[in-house]
Amino acid sequence: MSQTTAVGTTNDLFSKHSATLQAALDAIAARTFYARWPEAPSPKVYGENAQAEGLARFDSQVGQPYSGLLQGSDGSMACKEVSPYTGQPLNISYPSRKNPSEYVHIADSLRTEWRKSDLQTRAGILIESLERVAARFFELASATQHTTGQSWIMSFQASGPHSNDRALETVAMAWQELNRFPEKAEWVKPSGKDKEGNMRYTTLHKQWRKEPIGVSLCIGCSTFPVWNTTPAIYGSLMTGNPVIVKPHPTAIYPIALVVEEIQKTLKENGFSPEIVQLATDTPEAPIAKILADDARVKLIDYTGGSAFGDYLEALSGKRVFTEKAGINSVVLHSTKNMKAMMGNIAFSLSLYSGQMCTCPQNIFIPKGGIGTPEGMVSYEDTIAALTFAIKDLMEKAGAGVLGAIQNPATYDRTRQVQDSGLKVLLPAQEISNPEFPQARNLTPTVLEVPADRRDAIGKEMFGPITYVVPVEDYQEGIALARNLATEHGAITFSAWCTDAAAIEYMADEMAQSFTSVSFNFVGGIWVNQSAGFSDFHVTGGNPAGNASLTDPEFVLRRFEWVGVRVHP
Amino acid sequence: MSQTTAVGTTNDLFSKHSATLQAALDAIAARTFYARWPEAPSPKVYGENAQAEGLARFDSQVGQPYSGLLQGSDGSMACKEVSPYTGQPLNISYPSRKNPSEYVHIADSLRTEWRKSDLQTRAGILIESLERVAARFFELASATQHTTGQSWIMSFQASGPHSNDRALETVAMAWQELNRFPEKAEWVKPSGKDKEGNMRYTTLHKQWRKEPIGVSLCIGCSTFPVWNTTPAIYGSLMTGNPVIVKPHPTAIYPIALVVEEIQKTLKENGFSPEIVQLATDTPEAPIAKILADDARVKLIDYTGGSAFGDYLEALSGKRVFTEKAGINSVVLHSTKNMKAMMGNIAFSLSLYSGQMCTCPQNIFIPKGGIGTPEGMVSYEDTIAALTFAIKDLMEKAGAGVLGAIQNPATYDRTRQVQDSGLKVLLPAQEISNPEFPQARNLTPTVLEVPADRRDAIGKEMFGPITYVVPVEDYQEGIALARNLATEHGAITFSAWCTDAAAIEYMADEMAQSFTSVSFNFVGGIWVNQSAGFSDFHVTGGNPAGNASLTDPEFVLRRFEWVGVRVHP
Repeated sequence: MSQTTAVGTTNDLFSKHSATLQAALDAIAARTFYARWPEAPSPKVYGENAQAEGLARFDSQVGQPYSGLLQGSDGSMACKEVSPYTGQPLNISYPSRKNPSEYVHIADSLRTEWRKSDLQTRAGILIESLERVAARFFELASATQHTTGQSWIMSFQASGPHSNDRALETVAMAWQELNRFPEKAEWVKPSGKDKEGNMRYTTLHKQWRKEPIGVSLCIGCSTFPVWNTTPAIYGSLMTGNPVIVKPHPTAIYPIALVVEEIQKTLKENGFSPEIVQLATDTPEAPIAKILADDARVKLIDYTGGSAFGDYLEALSGKRVFTEKAGINSVVLHSTKNMKAMMGNIAFSLSLYSGQMCTCPQNIFIPKGGIGTPEGMVSYEDTIAALTFAIKDLMEKAGAGVLGAIQNPATYDRTRQVQDSGLKVLLPAQEISNPEFPQARNLTPTVLEVPADRRDAIGKEMFGPITYVVPVEDYQEGIALARNLATEHGAITFSAWCTDAAAIEYMADEMAQSFTSVSFNFVGGIWVNQSAGFSDFHVTGGNPAGNASLTDPEFVLRRFEWVGVRVHP
Repeated sequence: MSQTTAVGTTNDLFSKHSATLQAALDAIAARTFYARWPEAPSPKVYGENAQAEGLARFDSQVGQPYSGLLQGSDGSMACKEVSPYTGQPLNISYPSRKNPSEYVHIADSLRTEWRKSDLQTRAGILIESLERVAARFFELASATQHTTGQSWIMSFQASGPHSNDRALETVAMAWQELNRFPEKAEWVKPSGKDKEGNMRYTTLHKQWRKEPIGVSLCIGCSTFPVWNTTPAIYGSLMTGNPVIVKPHPTAIYPIALVVEEIQKTLKENGFSPEIVQLATDTPEAPIAKILADDARVKLIDYTGGSAFGDYLEALSGKRVFTEKAGINSVVLHSTKNMKAMMGNIAFSLSLYSGQMCTCPQNIFIPKGGIGTPEGMVSYEDTIAALTFAIKDLMEKAGAGVLGAIQNPATYDRTRQVQDSGLKVLLPAQEISNPEFPQARNLTPTVLEVPADRRDAIGKEMFGPITYVVPVEDYQEGIALARNLATEHGAITFSAWCTDAAAIEYMADEMAQSFTSVSFNFVGGIWVNQSAGFSDFHVTGGNPAGNASLTDPEFVLRRFEWVGVRVHP
């Protein structure tokens, strides 16, 4: 049903990329490790000069109008991108339209052009555009670094191979669903016997059309402007919907690059490039709500805060896919290796300064301590091991792991929480970044919060802020974690535990809050990361978001099967 | 991926029914004709005495408490079922609970018992229960006839084989989705080289759990109490959710029979029968909203009016599947056989007195007439042919085709519309039903409505009411039909047309309103009917409903994939 070879190849791009599509289809079925694009920025793979060329392209873009987009405009918008590393504005302007509904008008006018395209053409164009983005991974990395504050290597991986993999995964999932039912069938129903006793039959010629839902709006966030947006773009395009990309006003350049490559591939293949458009705005004059409220906009993808996400989800006549705020928990029960566990947790808390939606916030630690091969380690000693691990990591690799804080409000929140009356177990500190002396950073702060302070543990503290919560036992920790996930949302849960029955208990409890669960991570694997083609990112079952990357619903809701029956 | 034979058989019922499941899986993939249960009530298939026995069971149930259900109660509810054929109350009482939230409490308490059951056990129990329902099709037919007013044969087909087929289809679709991804996989990621140059790998043991969403509430309607409810019941149960069935207060007996058979099959297989419960109410003290508002209710299926359906769809924290009101259109362009066309339309309008959600309401006819092999037939002559066909059908088979009008309000509406100032082309008339002299019936009334009377053509007129709307040309008819479907919802669209280009134009336009399309039906096939395993009933893409029988979403939204990753 999803064999790419089962359908004749009618265009060159599809032939070129059909093996890639088939590999992706196999990967989403098997869910074992698969990556189309290597996450190591190896010169052997990406070219000897790719890194230098990418940096040069980035340097030459800064301070200049962004000219690569193939879309009309009635003005140029000077956007508010500022590098969290240098504190300097990027001073890039983008083509823009004074009236935001003009984007919707254009998208709507191109609806039929794109919905009439065949699936192979769409798949060929979309995978080709991903290959072209891959040729610019190094420029994309710098663009991501200097808008989000991610470290360079994280920028490379998140906006480059990981994002491309997630987009390809979505194309494959959509391909599978779009080919799930036959396009045509002859339906022959036995309809009794005639007067001579011969069977009669009623025949209908049936067709099933895969009708796209309509104009798609993809609203990006400031911290993962590419990774969190490409699945939506590619999912909507593959299912036949024109797309308007509305990036966060402080992180435009990275996704502009992706839009540019799709537009160019569309144009070269005879389609109107504005089937995907970039719609920029500024914090002072936001346009997301104007676009979302437009009756012609039928699909909305959104990553960001819960207030606007809840607003969008409640809009009638739209299909809305969200990733919103959540409160991720950790429960400590027992470990084979205290030091390795704490090293792993410290890294998870520190990575990109806690600005990942998957980063833990509340760490529930039994008051009686946790089990280790050397016997029980007391609650106090467990905290000491945690804070030591963070300090140790900060000393050895702090600036690189932390990256920079994207939003000054996150910096302020991290500072202020230390004066909130909670017991400070580890204070936040600025750390020197030799490469970028002006980088906005803070080391993780760890505070102790009593379990009955639901006001505190029930509030997302985005940034490098960790709460340690003493509990009677791990079951109390699980009960709190499950309840927080159910009430406020959660994307990840992690625990360390050497007892099989307790592991099953925890997995079963947290699964009922629709939170992904990770156990006993040590070494080079962290709860923060989800793997394309294997892990579902967000389940869609709790308030952290109603969509999942990439489950079948993520693509199915972008089109409908419409039956046509003809009596011959 | 969906081969039933791929999994070892662990219970007898699954072995018994695995061939049925496989046939259903093949059918939903092929979408050619398939029916598990014959729609002809043949004694050869269902038994020589089945009809007599079914009638006897029905007769002995009337006037007695319904005692077959295996559920607790703190009272007995005398329900308000009245036969539209005799005008007499059925006088059946059902076990009930004074506090509706008690149903939710019980369902919630059984959540884990059922969610821990394995897929084969669920499939085996559910298909077994359908076979047991099939053994009571004749009783079910009488129960349906004397609550809904459907003719006996339609009652047999709709609540019997057609409903059972739709339920089996849903079980199969759920089986396919629940088995879509592996339960476990070993994920091995290449992770660079060690100091000796040997490749390192990171291994995770992954699981994916299929977590049911929670308590499911299925709210039935008065006209199709079984057909419109069983897919929801079986979809929720197959995906692991306990179910509360809240039938319409005037049509309980038919679905009580289905609930009884599921409960008995559950109990015989060691499960609590109240995993599915019947929750009855009366028009004076409705409980649907109380149940729907309960925070523990997570899934709601609803068939009925748009006002309450819109309310349900807007509830936050719930997943809601609706079929609401719609306005179905017909466009006449040309035909090979005027008489056969009009006979087909007349039957569609008359069948069950226009009380089907798929029944046409507005018939758009070009003022210049329609094409036939004998030349253009004028608008006036087309109307005359239509009204003649209806009168002819009523004379020859009126009482049987019409059945009876379920709700006195439908009767009153049909009477009143004739005094609404619209031009009456064919008045409604009572018709004699020799078998049931007290049957509430009216022949279809046909009225002419100008195309600019959007207030009239844009309002659903449930019952035997047809509007003929003169239009400039078929394109105007299509434009109106598309707009009505988009604004107010539509489930079906039908047209008669001999021009291939016009057919494609109409199909393409109506597909954009997410309305199923039927062309040129004559003889024993009517737009009113959708076929299990082949036609999607409702697309989910317009205001007539957000769910589709049975597309993948119908089952996918009843559970979520939750990943568990264990670092060994």
